[in-house]
Amino acid sequence: MANLWQRSIQLFPVPASSLLLYADSAHNADQLYFGRVHVPDPFISFTVGRKKYAVVSALEFGRVKRDSAFDVVLPLEIYAKEAKKRFPSGRMTAAEVIAVIARQFRIKAFVIPEDFPAGIATRITRLGLKLQIADGPIFPQREIKTDAEAAAIREGNRCSTIGILAAEAMLRASKIKNGQLFYRSTPLTSERLKIAIEIACLEAGAISLDTIAAGGDQACDPHERGHGPLRANELIIVDVFPRVNSTGYHGDMTRTFLKGRASDAQRSLVAAVRDAQLAALKIIRAGANGHAAHDAVVHLFASRGYETKHTDKGSVGFFHGTGHGLGLAVHEAPRVSTVDYRLKKGSVVTVEPGLYYPGLGGCRIEDVVQVTSTRPKMLSDCHYNWEIK
Amino acid sequence: MANLWQRSIQLFPVPASSLLLYADSAHNADQLYFGRVHVPDPFISFTVGRKKYAVVSALEFGRVKRDSAFDVVLPLEIYAKEAKKRFPSGRMTAAEVIAVIARQFRIKAFVIPEDFPAGIATRITRLGLKLQIADGPIFPQREIKTDAEAAAIREGNRCSTIGILAAEAMLRASKIKNGQLFYRSTPLTSERLKIAIEIACLEAGAISLDTIAAGGDQACDPHERGHGPLRANELIIVDVFPRVNSTGYHGDMTRTFLKGRASDAQRSLVAAVRDAQLAALKIIRAGANGHAAHDAVVHLFASRGYETKHTDKGSVGFFHGTGHGLGLAVHEAPRVSTVDYRLKKGSVVTVEPGLYYPGLGGCRIEDVVQVTSTRPKMLSDCHYNWEIK
Repeated sequence: MANLWQRSIQLFPVPASSLLLYADSAHNADQLYFGRVHVPDPFISFTVGRKKYAVVSALEFGRVKRDSAFDVVLPLEIYAKEAKKRFPSGRMTAAEVIAVIARQFRIKAFVIPEDFPAGIATRITRLGLKLQIADGPIFPQREIKTDAEAAAIREGNRCSTIGILAAEAMLRASKIKNGQLFYRSTPLTSERLKIAIEIACLEAGAISLDTIAAGGDQACDPHERGHGPLRANELIIVDVFPRVNSTGYHGDMTRTFLKGRASDAQRSLVAAVRDAQLAALKIIRAGANGHAAHDAVVHLFASRGYETKHTDKGSVGFFHGTGHGLGLAVHEAPRVSTVDYRLKKGSVVTVEPGLYYPGLGGCRIEDVVQVTSTRPKMLSDCHYNWEIK
Repeated sequence: MANLWQRSIQLFPVPASSLLLYADSAHNADQLYFGRVHVPDPFISFTVGRKKYAVVSALEFGRVKRDSAFDVVLPLEIYAKEAKKRFPSGRMTAAEVIAVIARQFRIKAFVIPEDFPAGIATRITRLGLKLQIADGPIFPQREIKTDAEAAAIREGNRCSTIGILAAEAMLRASKIKNGQLFYRSTPLTSERLKIAIEIACLEAGAISLDTIAAGGDQACDPHERGHGPLRANELIIVDVFPRVNSTGYHGDMTRTFLKGRASDAQRSLVAAVRDAQLAALKIIRAGANGHAAHDAVVHLFASRGYETKHTDKGSVGFFHGTGHGLGLAVHEAPRVSTVDYRLKKGSVVTVEPGLYYPGLGGCRIEDVVQVTSTRPKMLSDCHYNWEIK
């Protein structure tokens, strides 16, 4: 517990031009965007002029050299050895290696992303380098998807659809006994539904993490993944956001099903959610405010009498954003919510209104679109039939 | 691009006692250890005295309140509203919310972990709070596993074994035609083997990410996951490190198989790797230096004539650590490598020597043990037969 952050901030006399990242690319979408290679442990990457550099261990070296978008791949072991020579005492971290690299490349200052680890950052500054933190995204161009990126997201949604259809097939094949669902004579649980979805995604070439298959009141906690037996006549939210193995891009889709017979109240709820989605889709276009699309959802729900309330026990009604950007990360810029934000041509966003009332149940319907100057382009494709007899 | 980090570091007059984290718990093991609840998006957590607090959105609120180890769960929306009132201009980030919380709880300084996001940290200091960065792990107790944690890791390895056996079964069921492997009449690829492993893990209750099933020269890049057809008479490395859904703890095991007939050189290679593993296991105990266990591996390989070389094209021989800590993260403290580090009673480490020579192939054998004051306790269990006729 030694390092202290100083309060005062100085303005930088000359903007630093070399980017510096220190992150793995399995979780950090900027690192993946930068190098286009999957590396599970944190590694150093940086720019000198227009060239992209990576410093990786022998574990990764051959693969990164062969498969990545880095122009130059440097072996970590050599720089670590040099760092050990220059800084013989104390703990060896990425900061000391970065100092050695900066010296070799005559770099005096780096721009780092907002999520750069604070501990490494303070160590770097102690070693005499200057750091400037990007105020906002370090790769703002990530928000605007190229055609290839849109195709990769479409592929992600193809996997989502495959997962959702696997769940639907299992619900269709299930029998109802005493209000409970049975699949192949044993109780159908959220867990079994999720495994079926995840297997279908694996076989389609994607990994589905945190898959949601939650029924009844469980579905009223939007991030509850679901557990235990599923029941007849209850709304079941199925939310699948797989990452395509070959590209790292995601799909993100939700459908809400019901096995058995829906009540009028459930039918009205589902209809309101779908109509809210259509209302938002009408507004989403380049130059429109994300806030306006969100308001369209809020107003539609209010006009149908669906109230949103926040209590000590949690919230009911509609209490999340209408959508979020989708790409190498599941949640990225832009947001379609209460935040004022002009949507840009080429952005890819989810459109996912939802309503949640314990007792009645939860419903969310989610698709993915690319923003254009006219009607948004659908990047997801799955039917909306939800009542399964 | 506005914030600048200042070089000079002041010592903190009074040590800060409130911890502050801002991370998701799907990837950040400290956040998961702290709150014992899976939250996919970054959230604020902190301590006041001995009490643990979390600030989460309505998306997570009910679930975190019910399932987590946090003593108090606060609704983000209320604090975000207050932050918007207090800081009406500029971008709203977690820093402004943290400032509101600090004021309410009369906290003037926080201790943050090394991987705390630098952008949020500078914003917090600009808002008048003091930050101290932990010099080393923020939860050093994570290194010492309780009996429950050891059991959770054993369960992770049970899933690893199930995955490895699924791969072995597929290799056994394959036929050799013109030197290539065929499973159910179509070429057996790394991809098919990985899917079989991942499905087996899913069905066992765990998620296996970045599964490795790489044959021939591909296996000589230790983090190459493998792609394309697998061939007879080649070493195939199968490395499976699943995360158990119910606990978040991992298994991590590797076996190397060969379908067909091994050459004498392949047999010697595999024998050396297994003997190296046994040599390391003899040294690992509480108080021993991890470096000594690593050296035992290095010496065994040298004594059998296996050279390690680093070239422009990559490295050959043994060029990674002998082991690493395992728990909520796949790689955590301690390391069993060239670093001097006294092993502690209760630590859980992998023991995974490997040899990699393009042309001959790669072999790695990995098990997991808990350090005791005598012989290490095995937390993994899978046979070592590797030649499959």
